[in-house]
Amino acid sequence: MSEFINVTVTKAANVYFDGLVTSRTLTFPDGSRKTLGIMQPGEFEFGTGAAEIMEILSGELDVQLPGEEQWRPIQGGESFEVPANARFSVRVHSLTDYCCAFLD
Amino acid sequence: MSEFINVTVTKAANVYFDGLVTSRTLTFPDGSRKTLGIMQPGEFEFGTGAAEIMEILSGELDVQLPGEEQWRPIQGGESFEVPANARFSVRVHSLTDYCCAFLD
Repeated sequence: MSEFINVTVTKAANVYFDGLVTSRTLTFPDGSRKTLGIMQPGEFEFGTGAAEIMEILSGELDVQLPGEEQWRPIQGGESFEVPANARFSVRVHSLTDYCCAFLD
Repeated sequence: MSEFINVTVTKAANVYFDGLVTSRTLTFPDGSRKTLGIMQPGEFEFGTGAAEIMEILSGELDVQLPGEEQWRPIQGGESFEVPANARFSVRVHSLTDYCCAFLD
Protein backbone atom coordinates (compact mmCIF):
# COMPACT_ATOMS: atom_id res chain seq x y z
CA MET A 1 0.00 0.00 0.00
CA SER A 2 1.80 3.08 -1.23
CA GLU A 3 -0.82 5.60 -0.11
CA PHE A 4 -3.55 6.08 2.44
CA ILE A 5 -6.90 7.29 1.15
CA ASN A 6 -9.72 9.21 2.83
CA VAL A 7 -7.70 10.24 5.87
CA THR A 8 -7.59 13.33 8.05
CA VAL A 9 -4.12 14.80 8.44
CA THR A 10 -3.20 17.04 11.35
CA LYS A 11 -1.40 19.98 9.83
CA ALA A 12 1.21 20.68 12.52
CA ALA A 13 4.06 18.21 12.86
CA ASN A 14 4.77 16.27 16.02
CA VAL A 15 8.30 17.24 17.04
CA TYR A 16 10.56 15.23 19.34
CA PHE A 17 14.23 15.46 20.31
CA ASP A 18 14.64 19.01 18.99
CA GLY A 19 13.26 17.95 15.63
CA LEU A 20 15.55 14.98 15.10
CA VAL A 21 12.34 12.95 15.09
CA THR A 22 9.21 14.43 13.52
CA SER A 23 5.93 12.96 12.37
CA ARG A 24 2.48 13.74 11.00
CA THR A 25 -0.67 12.23 12.44
CA LEU A 26 -3.21 10.55 10.16
CA THR A 27 -6.69 9.66 11.41
CA PHE A 28 -8.65 7.05 9.51
CA PRO A 29 -12.43 6.85 8.99
CA ASP A 30 -12.66 4.13 11.67
CA GLY A 31 -10.95 6.43 14.17
CA SER A 32 -7.65 4.58 14.13
CA ARG A 33 -4.43 6.55 13.96
CA LYS A 34 -1.07 6.23 12.29
CA THR A 35 1.90 8.56 12.16
CA LEU A 36 4.28 8.98 9.25
CA GLY A 37 7.64 10.11 10.53
CA ILE A 38 11.28 10.78 9.92
CA MET A 39 14.16 10.03 12.26
CA GLN A 40 17.51 11.68 11.71
CA PRO A 41 20.58 9.67 12.72
CA GLY A 42 20.97 9.46 16.50
CA GLU A 43 19.91 7.45 19.52
CA PHE A 44 16.43 7.94 20.90
CA GLU A 45 14.28 6.40 23.60
CA PHE A 46 10.52 6.38 23.20
CA GLY A 47 7.62 5.49 25.43
CA THR A 48 4.41 3.98 24.11
CA GLY A 49 0.86 4.63 25.22
CA ALA A 50 -1.03 2.23 23.01
CA ALA A 51 0.80 -0.74 21.55
CA GLU A 52 2.26 0.08 18.16
CA ILE A 53 3.66 -1.44 15.02
CA MET A 54 6.63 0.44 13.61
CA GLU A 55 7.00 -0.19 9.90
CA ILE A 56 10.34 1.02 8.58
CA LEU A 57 9.80 2.33 5.05
CA SER A 58 13.46 3.15 4.46
CA GLY A 59 16.58 3.59 6.51
CA GLU A 60 18.74 1.57 8.88
CA LEU A 61 18.54 1.35 12.63
CA ASP A 62 18.96 -0.96 15.60
CA VAL A 63 16.12 -1.37 18.05
CA GLN A 64 16.19 -2.47 21.66
CA LEU A 65 12.72 -3.71 22.55
CA PRO A 66 11.31 -3.63 26.10
CA GLY A 67 12.92 -6.21 28.36
CA GLU A 68 15.56 -7.15 25.80
CA GLU A 69 19.27 -6.62 26.19
CA GLN A 70 20.26 -7.12 22.61
CA TRP A 71 19.84 -4.66 19.79
CA ARG A 72 18.19 -5.96 16.63
CA PRO A 73 19.14 -4.54 13.25
CA ILE A 74 16.16 -3.28 11.26
CA GLN A 75 16.08 -1.89 7.78
CA GLY A 76 13.61 -0.57 5.23
CA GLY A 77 10.86 -3.10 4.57
CA GLU A 78 10.96 -4.52 8.10
CA SER A 79 8.69 -3.88 11.08
CA PHE A 80 8.68 -4.34 14.81
CA GLU A 81 5.94 -4.26 17.42
CA VAL A 82 6.09 -2.57 20.80
CA PRO A 83 3.62 -3.32 23.61
CA ALA A 84 1.53 -0.66 25.35
CA ASN A 85 3.02 1.43 28.16
CA ALA A 86 6.56 0.37 27.41
CA ARG A 87 9.85 1.98 26.52
CA PHE A 88 12.10 1.13 23.62
CA SER A 89 15.26 2.59 22.14
CA VAL A 90 16.57 3.01 18.64
CA ARG A 91 19.99 3.77 17.21
CA VAL A 92 19.33 5.33 13.82
CA HIS A 93 22.25 4.88 11.44
CA SER A 94 20.76 6.54 8.37
CA LEU A 95 17.75 8.73 7.74
CA THR A 96 14.73 6.61 8.55
CA ASP A 97 11.24 6.99 7.12
CA TYR A 98 8.62 5.15 9.16
CA CYS A 99 4.92 4.48 9.57
CA CYS A 100 3.71 3.88 13.11
CA ALA A 101 0.31 2.20 13.56
CA PHE A 102 -1.30 2.54 16.98
CA LEU A 103 -3.18 -0.54 18.12
CA ASP A 104 -5.77 1.15 20.29
CA MET B 1 -7.50 25.11 9.54
CA SER B 2 -5.64 22.74 11.82
CA GLU B 3 -6.29 19.60 9.79
CA PHE B 4 -6.99 18.46 6.24
CA ILE B 5 -9.88 16.06 5.77
CA ASN B 6 -10.58 13.48 3.09
CA VAL B 7 -7.10 13.49 1.61
CA THR B 8 -4.87 10.85 0.10
CA VAL B 9 -1.42 10.69 1.68
CA THR B 10 1.55 9.19 -0.13
CA LYS B 11 3.21 6.90 2.36
CA ALA B 12 6.87 7.39 1.45
CA ALA B 13 8.47 10.70 2.37
CA ASN B 14 9.97 13.07 -0.17
CA VAL B 15 13.61 13.45 0.85
CA TYR B 16 15.89 16.34 -0.16
CA PHE B 17 19.36 17.47 0.90
CA ASP B 18 20.22 14.15 2.58
CA GLY B 19 17.07 14.34 4.66
CA LEU B 20 17.59 17.85 5.98
CA VAL B 21 14.35 18.66 4.16
CA THR B 22 11.58 16.06 4.05
CA SER B 23 7.90 16.22 3.22
CA ARG B 24 4.75 14.18 2.72
CA THR B 25 2.47 14.66 -0.25
CA LEU B 26 -1.28 15.14 0.25
CA THR B 27 -3.68 14.91 -2.68
CA PHE B 28 -7.11 16.50 -2.29
CA PRO B 29 -10.42 15.35 -3.79
CA ASP B 30 -10.17 18.09 -6.46
CA GLY B 31 -6.75 16.75 -7.51
CA SER B 32 -4.80 19.60 -5.99
CA ARG B 33 -1.66 18.84 -3.99
CA LYS B 34 0.04 20.13 -0.89
CA THR B 35 3.11 18.93 0.94
CA LEU B 36 3.65 19.07 4.68
CA GLY B 37 7.35 19.27 5.39
CA ILE B 38 10.15 19.82 7.84
CA MET B 39 13.36 21.74 7.23
CA GLN B 40 16.29 21.28 9.57
CA PRO B 41 18.55 24.30 10.07
CA GLY B 42 20.71 24.99 7.02
CA GLU B 43 20.73 26.80 3.70
CA PHE B 44 18.84 25.30 0.79
CA GLU B 45 17.99 26.27 -2.76
CA PHE B 46 14.80 24.97 -4.33
CA GLY B 47 13.33 25.04 -7.79
CA THR B 48 9.62 25.23 -8.45
CA GLY B 49 7.60 23.53 -11.13
CA ALA B 50 4.15 24.92 -10.44
CA ALA B 51 3.85 28.17 -8.54
CA GLU B 52 3.57 27.58 -4.82
CA ILE B 53 2.56 29.17 -1.56
CA MET B 54 4.85 28.28 1.34
CA GLU B 55 3.03 28.64 4.63
CA ILE B 56 5.41 28.51 7.58
CA LEU B 57 3.64 26.76 10.44
CA SER B 58 6.50 27.18 12.89
CA GLY B 59 10.18 28.02 12.76
CA GLU B 60 12.39 30.87 11.64
CA LEU B 61 14.07 31.39 8.31
CA ASP B 62 15.11 33.96 5.76
CA VAL B 63 13.98 33.63 2.18
CA GLN B 64 15.50 35.03 -0.99
CA LEU B 65 12.79 35.10 -3.63
CA PRO B 66 13.50 34.89 -7.37
CA GLY B 67 15.03 38.06 -8.73
CA GLU B 68 15.52 39.60 -5.30
CA GLU B 69 18.83 40.41 -3.71
CA GLN B 70 17.63 40.86 -0.17
CA TRP B 71 16.69 38.14 2.27
CA ARG B 72 13.34 38.48 4.01
CA PRO B 73 12.86 37.15 7.52
CA ILE B 74 9.91 34.77 7.83
CA GLN B 75 8.55 33.09 10.90
CA GLY B 76 5.76 30.79 11.95
CA GLY B 77 2.37 32.14 10.88
CA GLU B 78 3.78 33.86 7.78
CA SER B 79 3.72 32.77 4.12
CA PHE B 80 5.44 33.57 0.88
CA GLU B 81 4.63 32.82 -2.73
CA VAL B 82 7.04 31.61 -5.39
CA PRO B 83 6.26 31.74 -9.11
CA ALA B 84 6.39 28.72 -11.41
CA ASN B 85 9.71 27.53 -12.86
CA ALA B 86 11.78 29.67 -10.53
CA ARG B 87 14.47 29.19 -7.94
CA PHE B 88 14.47 30.46 -4.38
CA SER B 89 16.74 30.03 -1.37
CA VAL B 90 16.12 29.73 2.33
CA ARG B 91 18.35 30.05 5.35
CA VAL B 92 16.65 28.05 8.07
CA HIS B 93 17.60 29.22 11.55
CA SER B 94 15.42 26.87 13.60
CA LEU B 95 13.47 23.73 12.80
CA THR B 96 10.77 24.77 10.36
CA ASP B 97 7.40 23.09 9.85
CA TYR B 98 5.74 24.12 6.60
CA CYS B 99 2.81 23.53 4.31
CA CYS B 100 3.44 24.03 0.60
CA ALA B 101 0.41 24.48 -1.67
CA PHE B 102 0.99 23.95 -5.38
CA LEU B 103 -0.97 26.31 -7.61
CA ASP B 104 -1.35 24.04 -10.61
